[in-house]
Amino acid sequence: MSTYLELKREAYEANVALPKHGLINLTFGNASAIDRAKAVFAIKPSGVDYATLSPDDMVVVDLEGRTVEGSLRPSSDTPTHRRLFLAFESIGGVVHTHSTRATAFAQAGRPIPIFGTTHADYFNGDVPVTRKMTAAEIAGAYEWETGNVIVERFAGIDPADFPGVLVNRHAPFAWGPTVAKAVETAVAIECVADMALMSLALAPDLGPIEPELLAKHFKRKHGAGAYYGQAR
Amino acid sequence: MSTYLELKREAYEANVALPKHGLINLTFGNASAIDRAKAVFAIKPSGVDYATLSPDDMVVVDLEGRTVEGSLRPSSDTPTHRRLFLAFESIGGVVHTHSTRATAFAQAGRPIPIFGTTHADYFNGDVPVTRKMTAAEIAGAYEWETGNVIVERFAGIDPADFPGVLVNRHAPFAWGPTVAKAVETAVAIECVADMALMSLALAPDLGPIEPELLAKHFKRKHGAGAYYGQAR
Amino acid sequence: MSTYLELKREAYEANVALPKHGLINLTFGNASAIDRAKAVFAIKPSGVDYATLSPDDMVVVDLEGRTVEGSLRPSSDTPTHRRLFLAFESIGGVVHTHSTRATAFAQAGRPIPIFGTTHADYFNGDVPVTRKMTAAEIAGAYEWETGNVIVERFAGIDPADFPGVLVNRHAPFAWGPTVAKAVETAVAIECVADMALMSLALAPDLGPIEPELLAKHFKRKHGAGAYYGQAR
Amino acid sequence: MSTYLELKREAYEANVALPKHGLINLTFGNASAIDRAKAVFAIKPSGVDYATLSPDDMVVVDLEGRTVEGSLRPSSDTPTHRRLFLAFESIGGVVHTHSTRATAFAQAGRPIPIFGTTHADYFNGDVPVTRKMTAAEIAGAYEWETGNVIVERFAGIDPADFPGVLVNRHAPFAWGPTVAKAVETAVAIECVADMALMSLALAPDLGPIEPELLAKHFKRKHGAGAYYGQAR
Repeated sequence: MSTYLELKREAYEANVALPKHGLINLTFGNASAIDRAKAVFAIKPSGVDYATLSPDDMVVVDLEGRTVEGSLRPSSDTPTHRRLFLAFESIGGVVHTHSTRATAFAQAGRPIPIFGTTHADYFNGDVPVTRKMTAAEIAGAYEWETGNVIVERFAGIDPADFPGVLVNRHAPFAWGPTVAKAVETAVAIECVADMALMSLALAPDLGPIEPELLAKHFKRKHGAGAYYGQAR
Repeated sequence: MSTYLELKREAYEANVALPKHGLINLTFGNASAIDRAKAVFAIKPSGVDYATLSPDDMVVVDLEGRTVEGSLRPSSDTPTHRRLFLAFESIGGVVHTHSTRATAFAQAGRPIPIFGTTHADYFNGDVPVTRKMTAAEIAGAYEWETGNVIVERFAGIDPADFPGVLVNRHAPFAWGPTVAKAVETAVAIECVADMALMSLALAPDLGPIEPELLAKHFKRKHGAGAYYGQAR
Repeated sequence: MSTYLELKREAYEANVALPKHGLINLTFGNASAIDRAKAVFAIKPSGVDYATLSPDDMVVVDLEGRTVEGSLRPSSDTPTHRRLFLAFESIGGVVHTHSTRATAFAQAGRPIPIFGTTHADYFNGDVPVTRKMTAAEIAGAYEWETGNVIVERFAGIDPADFPGVLVNRHAPFAWGPTVAKAVETAVAIECVADMALMSLALAPDLGPIEPELLAKHFKRKHGAGAYYGQAR
Repeated sequence: MSTYLELKREAYEANVALPKHGLINLTFGNASAIDRAKAVFAIKPSGVDYATLSPDDMVVVDLEGRTVEGSLRPSSDTPTHRRLFLAFESIGGVVHTHSTRATAFAQAGRPIPIFGTTHADYFNGDVPVTRKMTAAEIAGAYEWETGNVIVERFAGIDPADFPGVLVNRHAPFAWGPTVAKAVETAVAIECVADMALMSLALAPDLGPIEPELLAKHFKRKHGAGAYYGQAR
């Protein structure tokens, strides 16, 4: 019997949650969960319909990129997930979607501006956007290089403070201590992108949330002083 | 057996109605119902998923803010609800959401302008917006102070005429004689915010509804001359 | 046994179709069906939740406005329906909604411009908008006068060519040979309002569809030369 | 027994998928599947509600436009489908919808600009738009001429590189090696139209995706070097 049953189920649950939250059309998007002790992660197979997906379809890949379990080809975005797991040691899961409002910002190469407390509950500032990839990066190991431009963007930034990013011309990635939490953040990114679009329609020159209010909301949910939710 | 069964069920029904009406993502938002005779209100526990919520999870809190029944931590927004119940003696329920269109107005610091009869069926004018909170208010008893800026905004205003508000940079609160009616008003706020956004796209300088038409529609549903709905 | 069973069922089916098509929030909106031979129409009761509505709740009203069957109070908009049934002798049903995109145009006092064939399949031109009502009309028999401004707007216009209207500052009304067809037109009005909003975002000065294409599409579905759908 | 059972089922499945994907209101839209060996295609009957459609309702039509099986009248758009099957020999299915965002571009006479990788996964550039039809074309064999303006627009273009089009003032058509794939492309067209509208709201002068990134994504899914999805 597979020693990765639990990990595959966790990745499966996250993947099928994506269309339920309206983040996914067709076969776009994918989610992965890592087992740090075993140094492997489970990820969606490439191009498989969410409606027919089963936990056993998840592909288990090690941190060198080798498939260690599963008969299907892993998501074409697997090297991006692997790059993030290697660079961001505190994270337990990665989610990639093409959710429409966040993708609209990514296509425009604009960060999602932090206009309110909904956003501040999840991010300690704007949702960042990567620089555009070079022709050489695109022609090379494209999906790995996609991870690289994310990592480059996060130089000096704690990925726990900014649990997601927009890849320029592409779409959002989110992460978190668990893949379930990364799914939640992916939902939040889409939600705050939608709200920001509408706030910009009302006030094109709107400035960011005041720093005190940002800090208050972010810290209600994160860090030692957090008091949102139930005690753990 | 709990003496608050009925109150907890009422609060529960209102809370689970919020995602059904599309007003809530994730665990955002909360609803509460007060028993004025007993001077307690029942409110959603903090950070609990709506899908797993049960009536028994509701937390009963008194008007000094002490939990009188329930094993879970009450919503982090409980002091805001408490402040509103203390200030607005005629109300029986409070609802807080981060519904996207209303929140877009809140983030922009703009009232929702009253452009038509849909709006006039619920509000006797624009949906008001609070002033921004000061750094001292945010650093202090933040959620209680959130209630205070709402109460300050309603100086000289009957909360029955304007059964909701946008908290600046944050999101809407709604209230009513019952929490079920507060849910209905929260739905209406989101609906008229959506309509107003689209009317502004068509006519950026659109003025408010004519006073006679506002009065006619508001009074069809409110006060001694109301004739909408069934006789009671 | 009621002699209006069939009529009440027809009105009921139309009313419950409205929230299914996403045209209705809360208890907004209403539909009615007329029996021309008996000179009565069945209409939704006022302020009743669609989820609890039954065919037997429909109120039967005659063309003088007297309730002839039913224990509930009819929709507060009943005089508007009655006015339309009296003025437009060819129609068999009336539908009123506050669907959001059409209402955005109504609030802005703008007709829905005819930009494409979807619109031309239903209307022989823009969806018209009434003039604003006067203070006297609002203070008088308001709902009857609402019907009057619609009838005034249709002077010289065949209501079969333009099976709906936007009441200024208010919302759309639709009609048709049957109430089922009026529901379909109400869906189409919302759909073309949505498309027109987005086309205007792309091309603020966009002109109307070319007259030949309008005529072609409208006549594919209407009149002696119609060839859309199955032979009857 | 019908020799077209399989073909009719394939066309039926595609037709009922359209409202499930939110691409269709009312009876708008239609899908067809061709059997190249038998030189016939199965298509939706005209004006029939999707909810009551059955596989046996599909009408089988030959490439001269004669009904060879089926008791219902085929879709009024049948000549457009036939024209496309004749001109584009590699395609196996055609889908026509009035999906709202794509139709907004069609009404405005604008191609859907290629702003990101979601779009590049399906199209090798902008989604093209036809020229407007002339009065003579509209007065003539209108639906056949609709096919002709599409074919004219694709002079020198491989329909596999651009598997869909916007008909000016009308709405999108999509195609593919199978009708199931054409449905997927119709979903993608609506999705990228929605994203492009929002990107344009954020950046009205946004330029197209960089050629290297377009080529990379298009070729991940198309042609000899494709590596998205499972091996076949």
